[in-house]
Amino acid sequence: MKTPKVTARAHTNIALVKYWGKADEELIIPQNNSLSLTLDHFYTDTTVQFDPTLTADQFTLNGQAQKTTKITKFLDIIRQMAASQLFARVESTNHVPTMAGLASSASAYAALALAGSKALGLDLNSKDLSRLARRGSGSACRSIYGGFVEWQKGDSDQTSYAVPLVENLDWDLKMIAIVVNDKQKKIASRAGMQTVVHTSPYYSAWVKRSKEDLLALKQAIAEKDFTQLGKIAEGNAMCMHALNLSATPHFNYFEAESLKAMQLVEQLRDQGLECYYTMDAGPNVKVICQGKDLKAIVDSLSQEFSNEQLLVASAGPGAEILEIKNSERN
Amino acid sequence: MKTPKVTARAHTNIALVKYWGKADEELIIPQNNSLSLTLDHFYTDTTVQFDPTLTADQFTLNGQAQKTTKITKFLDIIRQMAASQLFARVESTNHVPTMAGLASSASAYAALALAGSKALGLDLNSKDLSRLARRGSGSACRSIYGGFVEWQKGDSDQTSYAVPLVENLDWDLKMIAIVVNDKQKKIASRAGMQTVVHTSPYYSAWVKRSKEDLLALKQAIAEKDFTQLGKIAEGNAMCMHALNLSATPHFNYFEAESLKAMQLVEQLRDQGLECYYTMDAGPNVKVICQGKDLKAIVDSLSQEFSNEQLLVASAGPGAEILEIKNSERN
Repeated sequence: MKTPKVTARAHTNIALVKYWGKADEELIIPQNNSLSLTLDHFYTDTTVQFDPTLTADQFTLNGQAQKTTKITKFLDIIRQMAASQLFARVESTNHVPTMAGLASSASAYAALALAGSKALGLDLNSKDLSRLARRGSGSACRSIYGGFVEWQKGDSDQTSYAVPLVENLDWDLKMIAIVVNDKQKKIASRAGMQTVVHTSPYYSAWVKRSKEDLLALKQAIAEKDFTQLGKIAEGNAMCMHALNLSATPHFNYFEAESLKAMQLVEQLRDQGLECYYTMDAGPNVKVICQGKDLKAIVDSLSQEFSNEQLLVASAGPGAEILEIKNSERN
Repeated sequence: MKTPKVTARAHTNIALVKYWGKADEELIIPQNNSLSLTLDHFYTDTTVQFDPTLTADQFTLNGQAQKTTKITKFLDIIRQMAASQLFARVESTNHVPTMAGLASSASAYAALALAGSKALGLDLNSKDLSRLARRGSGSACRSIYGGFVEWQKGDSDQTSYAVPLVENLDWDLKMIAIVVNDKQKKIASRAGMQTVVHTSPYYSAWVKRSKEDLLALKQAIAEKDFTQLGKIAEGNAMCMHALNLSATPHFNYFEAESLKAMQLVEQLRDQGLECYYTMDAGPNVKVICQGKDLKAIVDSLSQEFSNEQLLVASAGPGAEILEIKNSERN
């Protein structure tokens, strides 16, 4: 018998203290705690149904059939938890530019963890959902929660998961993603961080620094100190990108337009418009600001980038079930 | 009585293992040994004459009168060595784009050290000339010698100087400077490295790494292993630029054209044309290659950069006296 057909939505998140390196490649246990803000406007909707008539998993993304290797590996974990051997039909719609450093894998695996586990009748609590999502993509464990979220690295599958810090922000923070390139990134984050962990002479100093940044950022959040939050996030991001330059072989995610975007942010700051940037494993630049300054900042950025390149988001909610259709009604 | 009028020439040098950080700001004693190649086509000619009729030092660069603050501070060291109180007329001609990350201060202070000390009758040996040049600009101590030169950091004014490794190369190495911007650099190297030493969490790892790079590079030079030389130089440069990203405040010397130049070099390498790049405290990219590949590499670079932007040099000689005019004949 077919399982219920479950649709879940999860939002992407932007790390203010970055995850950049695994201690365990297979279980995806990170080298350092990270801290993110879940965003409202970038999300993935995923529908999962397990079906005894299928002879293999099926996966469509935005209506297009995809390779199932990674999805199957992830569904195997859920099947094992539920003692099931059914294959699944997975339909995802990404409301995030895929693979452009906007962390679509975070929303994707958080949604898949929730929809998939629910479809097989598992009623996982948030902690176990976070642990499960982590197995698909590390940063996905943070997208289980809304608002500010900390991924506590732990040291095992049991102890590595995200926890919510402030789920409902009473703070009007905004993020403007400047999409300078929506093509796939040159070096996937998984490969990039692996090279860094194994070859960067700066890696152990990064782990130490990220601990300090995490503590300072939690304090800035507690005190709603935007200046501190911005400085820590921008500095932490640059320390992460410094690791890439110091790796063997070295690599980087900077493009000409990324440099232009970063310079613009610095100029706006010099002009008294407070904003900070961060970057992930791609050339896009994400600008953090307060709601009161959003319009002025977007207006300035619009002089150099098209409206299609400027995507605005606010703090968003955690992963949620959108719909459960019972198999009888399919 | 006027001193003889002495003209000296010194060539700039390009560091393959970088100097990036002082242990002593005043004496310019570095945190790590560095290793450079002196270049033939970029040099400074400087004429110095001390003159009892002068009431202050005078300094022209390329025929233009300049501020004398730094020159006077440097000449004071020479005057003290010679127990002289005469002011000097200094005329320099730079055959290097000034302040564009092509290390014009290296050739400038090496030439000034030689011409100035000679004019006051000091007959310094190379080691003491190197120590003296160091006081003007750290990397100048390397420009006293030709070919491959190591600046041994030492731990005092007496023990910090450059030594020649291979003065006359039996190796057809070429350097192509891609001048992407000949404007003055945003952040002077002196300020940049100071920020890095005081704030980068990666600094101590850099010092350790540069020691390893130095040993490996000396071996590559001994074995004339161009591949190793290029890889070490490029990796060391990127580790240096990584420090800048990790500083507080962070900064960098990358411009859009720098990224383009670096990508081009990587593409040429992928196509089997062996070349490597390095960058200093400015946006220009310097490409290291072997003579046999020079034409093909320049031809390829010419498709993206104008001929005026591509400056080629080979290994060059150490600092030398060009002319001594006795005061009687002035």
